[in-house]
Amino acid sequence: MISAGEVWMRVLLALGGNAMSGPGGSTKPEDQIAGVQQSMASVADLIVAGVEVVLTHGNGPQVGSLLVMNEVSASVVPPLPLDWCGAQTQATLGFIMLNALEAAMAERGAARSTVAVVTRTLVSVDDGGFSHPSKPIGRYLTREEATVLIEHGQHFEDRGERGWRRVVASPEPLEILEVSVIAQLMRAGHIVIANGGGGIPVVRDSDGCLRGVEAVIDKDLGAALLARNLGVDRLVIATDVEAAVLGFDGPDAQPLGTVSVADLRGYAADGHFASGSMGPKVEAICRFVEATGRPGAITSLANIVATVRGEAGTFVIPAGDGASATRDGRGT
Amino acid sequence: MISAGEVWMRVLLALGGNAMSGPGGSTKPEDQIAGVQQSMASVADLIVAGVEVVLTHGNGPQVGSLLVMNEVSASVVPPLPLDWCGAQTQATLGFIMLNALEAAMAERGAARSTVAVVTRTLVSVDDGGFSHPSKPIGRYLTREEATVLIEHGQHFEDRGERGWRRVVASPEPLEILEVSVIAQLMRAGHIVIANGGGGIPVVRDSDGCLRGVEAVIDKDLGAALLARNLGVDRLVIATDVEAAVLGFDGPDAQPLGTVSVADLRGYAADGHFASGSMGPKVEAICRFVEATGRPGAITSLANIVATVRGEAGTFVIPAGDGASATRDGRGT
Repeated sequence: MISAGEVWMRVLLALGGNAMSGPGGSTKPEDQIAGVQQSMASVADLIVAGVEVVLTHGNGPQVGSLLVMNEVSASVVPPLPLDWCGAQTQATLGFIMLNALEAAMAERGAARSTVAVVTRTLVSVDDGGFSHPSKPIGRYLTREEATVLIEHGQHFEDRGERGWRRVVASPEPLEILEVSVIAQLMRAGHIVIANGGGGIPVVRDSDGCLRGVEAVIDKDLGAALLARNLGVDRLVIATDVEAAVLGFDGPDAQPLGTVSVADLRGYAADGHFASGSMGPKVEAICRFVEATGRPGAITSLANIVATVRGEAGTFVIPAGDGASATRDGRGT
Repeated sequence: MISAGEVWMRVLLALGGNAMSGPGGSTKPEDQIAGVQQSMASVADLIVAGVEVVLTHGNGPQVGSLLVMNEVSASVVPPLPLDWCGAQTQATLGFIMLNALEAAMAERGAARSTVAVVTRTLVSVDDGGFSHPSKPIGRYLTREEATVLIEHGQHFEDRGERGWRRVVASPEPLEILEVSVIAQLMRAGHIVIANGGGGIPVVRDSDGCLRGVEAVIDKDLGAALLARNLGVDRLVIATDVEAAVLGFDGPDAQPLGTVSVADLRGYAADGHFASGSMGPKVEAICRFVEATGRPGAITSLANIVATVRGEAGTFVIPAGDGASATRDGRGT
């Protein structure tokens, strides 16, 4: 039995950008604050259950909103580069998460110190995404709207009737540059919020210096790297659904419970998970489990406490370890 | 004599928003990066001279630019609250400062870890600024432009021919909420960047919870509070001029060198320092010196190393301590 207040597990918890916004992904400030407050209540429940948490988060709806501001004002103010947009959301989301999580912890009689760290993620200047950007972001624009932004160096694709869409690199995350700071703050007892949006993408130039690049890092792949480097016991990705599902749209849809990483890799290879949504989450969890031999999970925020105990969600265990793994993961 | 690499003093260094932007306060991203690179070269010189530095910074030009984006896109995207704009600049400026300072340190053969912390500053919900907002920010707008923003809850004043101008609260900073995190990171050997723009303003509601408020905290008054709470040896405010000047615009202009805090208070009371520029810097330095009995200084970034040694800039020493204070401040 775990007594209240005792830390029995360290978890990196990755929250989707939707968990930080309002209904329909609304990014109105009051909607973001309300969404974050609801999410932080679940996070606080997890912490009160004795789990030491490091938080990371997506920023899709938020960056989308900033891009609209950039577009609308591009003829008056130079658009902010995508790495700056990502940085901005680390601070705004970090800020409202700090306030909401501290309030939720205080409400549970367990006040804690929280801290949000501006986090950079190293990518390779040779990543294929830079020569062939393919990740679509932002709204469909008219040719005229796109032209203003193309003149500012942005890449757009003509998508025919729907209009023009910006495409950017989504490079592989190689190194979380603030990992030692995050680890120190975690050891010192703070709840750390870090690597939002997968981290601010930077490349190392030939002189060794870092500079920001216009790119979008997958926040779940960034989370997998951070979880590995921090040496946490679990990577948990919280999303809008309770589990990864086989045959998602078909009549035989089957939610995955406990599954070995080898089986999950197989399902992914068979095309069960959509490339823009569940695919990267599955890939991120597989990477973490394979690299560390520790379990990972995909679940909804509402089921987060049960999932960490191995009693809900898609709970992924090391390959060949199925027989010895118990639902609470202590077998691994 | 101080040998290279030995830390002999801890300084909180406050940089103006202009030190983070291009010529004429340009906030084009490439201009901000170039401005920050130049500023961080001076900061690196100071660190290599054996001074342990915590950095804070203004964000006036940057917030001004964000406000323009807000205005131009207000009919399409809800404007971001002022506390969020401040948060955004903590991350974007923090990000480019991290890159530039690490590069400058590496160039000097003294690589160091740096970290930018999202920082909140507590203000009182009863601060007079909220009932009578008086700090003007942003551009002059037409009545039509202002109306859209007034509908979003912003306060504007009709300034006649020049147009309409937004006014906000500039409340007194009461507590830097991340001070213990900053102190821990500093002790662990990191160069910390914190409390940008004076901190993100928050109030504590009757239920004890924190929430952001639309306000602008004077970054120098915020710096004075942070310097006091961190217990640093010096507060140094770097600005565009080499010293505070008596009779600034007149024929008998006299730059201030070493001056007692009592004398400086007297000059301020006599109206020697402009309320929107040198005034708050003088007030901030006076508060730090009076509260700690340690020196403070106002200087240009180019003179920063000499100033910390008490050999340049306006060097402010405790009242009644003039005779025993030496230029390097060791007498205090």
